Amino acid sequence: MNQSLLSPAPETAPDFAGLIARLADRVPRHCILSKVEDTRPYECDGLSLYRALPPVVILPENEAQVVAVLRECKALNIPIVARGAGTGLSGGAMPHAQGVLMGLAKLNRIKSIDLDTATAVVEPGVRNLAISEAAAPYGLYYAPDPSSQIACTIGGNIAENSGGVHCLKYGLTVHNVLRVRVVTIDGDVVELGSGAPDTPGLDLLAAFIGSEGMLGIVTEITVKLIPKPSCARVIMASFGSVESASLAVTNVIAAGIIPAGLEMMDKRAVHMVEPFVKAGYDLDAEAILLCESDGTEEEVEDEIARMQAVFQDAGATRLQVSASEAERLVFWAGRKNAFPAAGRISPDYYCMDGTIPRRHLGRVLSAIEQMEDEFRLRCANVFHAGDGNLHPLILFDSNQPDEVERAEKFGAAILELCVQVGGTITGEHGVGMEKINQMCVQFTREELDYFLAFKRAFDPYGLLNPEKVVPTLARCAEYGKMHVHGGNIRFPELPRF
Amino acid sequence: MNQSLLSPAPETAPDFAGLIARLADRVPRHCILSKVEDTRPYECDGLSLYRALPPVVILPENEAQVVAVLRECKALNIPIVARGAGTGLSGGAMPHAQGVLMGLAKLNRIKSIDLDTATAVVEPGVRNLAISEAAAPYGLYYAPDPSSQIACTIGGNIAENSGGVHCLKYGLTVHNVLRVRVVTIDGDVVELGSGAPDTPGLDLLAAFIGSEGMLGIVTEITVKLIPKPSCARVIMASFGSVESASLAVTNVIAAGIIPAGLEMMDKRAVHMVEPFVKAGYDLDAEAILLCESDGTEEEVEDEIARMQAVFQDAGATRLQVSASEAERLVFWAGRKNAFPAAGRISPDYYCMDGTIPRRHLGRVLSAIEQMEDEFRLRCANVFHAGDGNLHPLILFDSNQPDEVERAEKFGAAILELCVQVGGTITGEHGVGMEKINQMCVQFTREELDYFLAFKRAFDPYGLLNPEKVVPTLARCAEYGKMHVHGGNIRFPELPRF
Repeated sequence: MNQSLLSPAPETAPDFAGLIARLADRVPRHCILSKVEDTRPYECDGLSLYRALPPVVILPENEAQVVAVLRECKALNIPIVARGAGTGLSGGAMPHAQGVLMGLAKLNRIKSIDLDTATAVVEPGVRNLAISEAAAPYGLYYAPDPSSQIACTIGGNIAENSGGVHCLKYGLTVHNVLRVRVVTIDGDVVELGSGAPDTPGLDLLAAFIGSEGMLGIVTEITVKLIPKPSCARVIMASFGSVESASLAVTNVIAAGIIPAGLEMMDKRAVHMVEPFVKAGYDLDAEAILLCESDGTEEEVEDEIARMQAVFQDAGATRLQVSASEAERLVFWAGRKNAFPAAGRISPDYYCMDGTIPRRHLGRVLSAIEQMEDEFRLRCANVFHAGDGNLHPLILFDSNQPDEVERAEKFGAAILELCVQVGGTITGEHGVGMEKINQMCVQFTREELDYFLAFKRAFDPYGLLNPEKVVPTLARCAEYGKMHVHGGNIRFPELPRF
Repeated sequence: MNQSLLSPAPETAPDFAGLIARLADRVPRHCILSKVEDTRPYECDGLSLYRALPPVVILPENEAQVVAVLRECKALNIPIVARGAGTGLSGGAMPHAQGVLMGLAKLNRIKSIDLDTATAVVEPGVRNLAISEAAAPYGLYYAPDPSSQIACTIGGNIAENSGGVHCLKYGLTVHNVLRVRVVTIDGDVVELGSGAPDTPGLDLLAAFIGSEGMLGIVTEITVKLIPKPSCARVIMASFGSVESASLAVTNVIAAGIIPAGLEMMDKRAVHMVEPFVKAGYDLDAEAILLCESDGTEEEVEDEIARMQAVFQDAGATRLQVSASEAERLVFWAGRKNAFPAAGRISPDYYCMDGTIPRRHLGRVLSAIEQMEDEFRLRCANVFHAGDGNLHPLILFDSNQPDEVERAEKFGAAILELCVQVGGTITGEHGVGMEKINQMCVQFTREELDYFLAFKRAFDPYGLLNPEKVVPTLARCAEYGKMHVHGGNIRFPELPRF
């Protein structure tokens, strides 16, 4: 395959005045922001290292307005970046300096909840947690629970294929969305997916979920709701080494148990969080695990006993099972507040998101420890151990000379190490701006070419969230790293596996 | 979007002699069949209504040979149709009359089983059941279980996104495959998916699964294995009407239970099967349900009790729970042998495969009963009730004038009725040749255009399994039916919903 790359973004400033004039009869003027004081709040998402002031922000109130904006942007060759709540951590919603930033917060209706099929139809601006709140009276909830679920929107969850602490058992966004309604750059409205287990024709839904705004703008989503388990308990287990905690993780899965959540925190993370949250974490442990079971009372009792036996065999030094729902929430509170806790001990932190085969957990964490010396920065590790999804928090101070640059290099080295051991550069936060260079390491040129060809099938003009997610050949050449499958990349400074 | 349609298949006979000569140094001569007596067995798959004699059959023995064949076919503009075991029911593996039929039966190695990750790496020609047999010593199995699992291959399962009686709880092929290695029409080898929960970049794996040989040829597959449940029992429940059985199905799901299998057979199907299998089915029932629970002994006991209560509330006239593993298998034997049993009471049968929202089961079955009069053919209904996936078996005699034509029209009317009530035209058998016209009813022109654009991203030459799955605009116009979402299609002869 040898197709030309996507057209670059416009080199001269697009005709924004013309755009606003063309939209006058279809999008209310109060939905269009163009003064700097109004557009400034949109200059970055949760990855505030990357910023760009959007010349125009449009906040449509319905699907017809989304169609109108996309049609006119296409006519005028203006890039469009979509944004949910802006809580994303990979810069996926960072504006284009010469494009429109489309915020979908006003499309926030829960249109229906269907108990027969246990589904809800919602608009993209609905907050993740608001879906579960609306379903609660029926004993149902929406399973994926990113840590930002109080603020983040389902539209953003779809863009990034978000996960959460329970996705080991209940899946990511892609496993919990049945159908999306999408406006394409041509202004076509298409539906992907269906209520049926098998979608006829090509199943483009999964490719759309996690496509980070490159293919179209979602205007309606049908999500699965599941029954709220009647009981949930969590084990907090201490270990004398990261290796023995990692062994416990591998063994619990190998025993055929799929915990509702299985999280690890290393000593630095525990010491960072405990003074802040006072969850009763063991300050002597080198690593602690939080392992949850949910279901009926009998199922939970049985599963908790089996998990405890596995942890004991793996050398747990302390085991504690939540005795009440209040205690369960306290155990989790530490984990869920790890990011804000990092803010108390360091002026800035950079949250990474790579995935590795579980069996390499111990070795990868040792390698990250060695990198701390090399990059002269500290790192706390908090992660979805069951999925092998790491969230190293690199602590730095952006006011110190070159610390930003060292943090970025440290992060890149961690991601490339993930690929080296057979893992991937993202678990649930997406590629966005942040990891675009590492895509050169993760994939072959041919694989990237098929991504670009697929992107082109939806957006031949390259206007939807341009220059993100999929790197061009030129970009990979400039980065100087090319993919090698099977761990052949050389890291002279790192232990080789 | 307005892109040109795929290039049609070659109008003149391609240069097969040239192809064989070009392959001489890379594909052993015994792997290439071109005499009619050798190619005849490949003229159809399980949908024997559609046949075409392939001019050349190639049976590669490794990936390098697959690459060579695809490169040379591309160079000579020769269409290629891939085939697994040929058990498919929608004509997806029907040969192209001017193309190469590539059989993948010789790529049949189980390359590895990894207990740490509970995965297996296999070649496409491995039989579905052989994976579970190889995993059995470790207490693991591969969940999707199409009725043809003793013969069908994992490669074919991927092409059709196959299901089975347990897919309500354990998912279809798409939910149980983690990664595929694919040879494209350009001879590139690419990997789609990953061992990680979230695939970085675009998740094209799900779009590939169920793409019916249109995008590339799979040469290696990583599948999930899951622990074999320690206990399984099945309830056989009789009902006085299809409506009350349908209500029981809806209510069991609404009660938050996800049975391991939930199947319905109507009276005609029961009477067809019972004399053949002697499973002890209730001949007085208008419908019977088979509803399975699996898990630990305690889980199964609890779930069976809850299911029985739901069935009793819905008006079950008889309830029987399997008392032993032997009895469980006998209960299922009737269901699993429904297709061969049809062969005992009718010279021919045509198995349909549509999906509807569960709440419409009763009404759709009544409508099918009315269609029996209209098309003057009998129909037995055997289906995955939990999924709303219907398998009406239309009974006919191909030696009687116009019965084939009436059977096809009957089938088309059933599928279009499925769309009319908000369902889909396929549950697990794929579109292939069989349902290509109904794709015009299921999807809008814009949606079909995006399918074609995606196909073109992988195969711009239109050589991989051409003229199947996605209809052209011309074909839809000729068929005279165009899509209308939301049940606006008129069936003057049918009750309107």
